[in-house]
Parts: sequence; C-alpha cells; structure tokens
Amino acid sequence: MAQARAEVTRQRIIDAAVELFNERGFGETGLADVLQRAGVTKGAFYYHFDSKDALAVSVIDQFQIAIRDAFRKTIDPPAAPGLENIIRGTFAVARLIQTDPAVRVGNELSQSLGQVSDAGPRVFRQTSVAFVDEVKKAFGAGDLRDDANPDDVGEVIWIGVIGCQFLSAAIGDDLVARLARVWHVLLRAIVPEPSLGFFYEVLERSLRDNVR
Amino acid sequence: MAQARAEVTRQRIIDAAVELFNERGFGETGLADVLQRAGVTKGAFYYHFDSKDALAVSVIDQFQIAIRDAFRKTIDPPAAPGLENIIRGTFAVARLIQTDPAVRVGNELSQSLGQVSDAGPRVFRQTSVAFVDEVKKAFGAGDLRDDANPDDVGEVIWIGVIGCQFLSAAIGDDLVARLARVWHVLLRAIVPEPSLGFFYEVLERSLRDNVR
Repeated sequence: MAQARAEVTRQRIIDAAVELFNERGFGETGLADVLQRAGVTKGAFYYHFDSKDALAVSVIDQFQIAIRDAFRKTIDPPAAPGLENIIRGTFAVARLIQTDPAVRVGNELSQSLGQVSDAGPRVFRQTSVAFVDEVKKAFGAGDLRDDANPDDVGEVIWIGVIGCQFLSAAIGDDLVARLARVWHVLLRAIVPEPSLGFFYEVLERSLRDNVR
Repeated sequence: MAQARAEVTRQRIIDAAVELFNERGFGETGLADVLQRAGVTKGAFYYHFDSKDALAVSVIDQFQIAIRDAFRKTIDPPAAPGLENIIRGTFAVARLIQTDPAVRVGNELSQSLGQVSDAGPRVFRQTSVAFVDEVKKAFGAGDLRDDANPDDVGEVIWIGVIGCQFLSAAIGDDLVARLARVWHVLLRAIVPEPSLGFFYEVLERSLRDNVR
C-alpha cells in the first residue's frame, strides 16, 4: 500500500517534469519548479531521485519503453515480411514522438543528455543493437538485396531514423514527412529492384496510416 | 587597440569554456568556473556575453565556421566531380570533429542546445540548405542517378552525416568508420550502377586520407 502510494508520487514528479521540460526546456526548469508543479516536498523528491539529472534519466527510460512498445506492436505477430514491419514500426514511433509530449520530451532529453549522464550512450547502444537485430531478421526473410551487408544496412536505417528524429526536433518540422523521404531513397539501396514497387506501396500506406 | 584587446579577452573566455565543457560537460560547468579558468572578472564576461547560454552559442558559431571552412576547402576549387567533393568534405569534417576539441564540443552543444536557445535550429536550417545546394551541383555534374530527386538525396546524405555525428558523439565510438559504412550503403541508392566502382574507390581513398 505504502509502495503503491510511493509509485504514484514518483510518477506525479515525472509527469510534472515532462510538463515543465515541454513548456520551458530542461535547462530552464529548476528543481523548485518541479516540486511546486508536482505538489511534493523536497524530502519526497529526494526519496525517489538523487538529482534533476536522475529525474531526466527516468523520463528517458519511460520514453525508451514507450518507443520500444510502439515498435514491437507493429512487429508482433510477424505476419508481414520483416522489412515491411520495420518500415511500419519507424512510422509508429515517429507518430508517437509527434503526438505524445512525454515521448517528445524523452526524445529531446536523450539527445541532449549525453554530456551530463551515461543514460544517452546506454539508450543508444541498446536501441542500436535491437534495431540492427530486426534488420537481420528481415534479411533472413529474403527482403534485402543479396549483396547487402545486414549489419551496415541496419546501421544506415537506424541512422536515418534517429537522424530524422534529431533534425526534426532541432528544426521543429514534420518528422513523418521527412522519414518518408529518407525511406524512399534508402529503399533503392537495400531491396532488390523487383521489390521496389511493393515497398514504395508499403511506404505510401504507412504514411496514410499516420495521418488518421 | 582597445578593440583588439577586447577581442583577445572574448576569445580567451571562449577557449576556457571549450576546455571546461570538454572536461566536465556544459551542464556541470558553472559561470564561476569559466571566469576562473579564463582569468577574467564578472564585469569583463558580461561585457561580451549575456549569459552562459550566449557563450555556448558563440562556441557553436565558431564550430559552424570551422566545419564550413573544412568542407569548402575540399570543395574549392571544384576540380573533381561534385559528389566526390561532397564525400571528401564529409570526411574532412568528421576528422575535424574527432581531432579538434573545440569542434567536438561545438558539435555536441549544437546537438544539445535546441531546447535552450534558437542557435540549434538556426545552425541546422542553414547547414541543411547549404548542404543540399552542394548535392544539387553534383546532380548538375551528372553524378546522380537519372531517377534521383536531388532534394531528397541531399537531405538523406545530410541526415546520414549528422546522424553519424550524433550517434558517435552519444556512444563515443569511431565517427570516421561509421561515416564510411553509411556512404557505402547510400552510394548504391544515389549513383548510377556503372559509377559505383569509381565512388567506392573515392570512399577508400577518403578513409586513407583520414588516418594520416
């Protein structure tokens, strides 16, 4: 019971932080602002978090879980070919970043906190490996060109996806549209010529799903 | 004379900030640390900069100029085909980020300051446009596939380059090796099949130039 209450308090602090980071940015948010918005004492805060940075790491962790769940939902069950799932998964994640403030803030924090904590490197090492694994499965399903190196292709797609997230967050423009342009060019490098038409169609449908 | 002295002081503050950001990170560096390292008074600091953020913006500005100069040096005079210059330019920039602490810090700050100032968006809008313009020139030189859209290809290369910079800064691994892997995959999407061998050779040579 006490534990459930503690968990509620912890989440209330995280939610307040997300609101404030979203409104003002991480750098402009003081610890006092978080306490006031969450309606908790300094003691309650330090029971859960060592510092403002530790709080940011929790926001990043929640972001990482949300992203992974959104991606997996389009991957399981693996009815469609591997690469089709990967394409749809990247659009599901892009949509989440564009529509969910907690995910958007988590995305921005994970990009900007590399210097102040090891959460950045940890997140990116883990997600890079997981993503390249999915591409290797697609390779197993015969989706990629025979001469494609699945490790390199996985890395390039991953860089395309996070590059889109990063650039759209920095400039503040349409992440989904950018992702579609990047996939359109990349597909030519990674799938066999006869499959191009099919995957362009997947791309079109992923874009349409995205605006609903 | 007084102006020259002021300029020296300004640069000394920037150099001290780069050292400290490099050693501890931006978030862990206080204004007092910068004043002490630079050996200047608070008054001297505020004569040149409004805040720590303004100082960071100056570091980003210097980074942007260094990057642009390194890129242009491989572009002018445009003796080689456009795309060859672009490939070599991206390696020159990667090498600079890996070897010059001021450029590395500027790169990291430009990535992480999107939330606290408009320097991030400004830098990325400007450099995105400039980069895509170079790709359009390469297209004019006949380097790209007939069916390639130069705007989209320029954007994808740009995302590949900044995605590499971002991921290698976050994880702390070899930017130049990652850039080579990304180019290797991308080339297949953007140059005509008969030119692939030539551009793979350019890539090899850019990598060798890079280790000297």
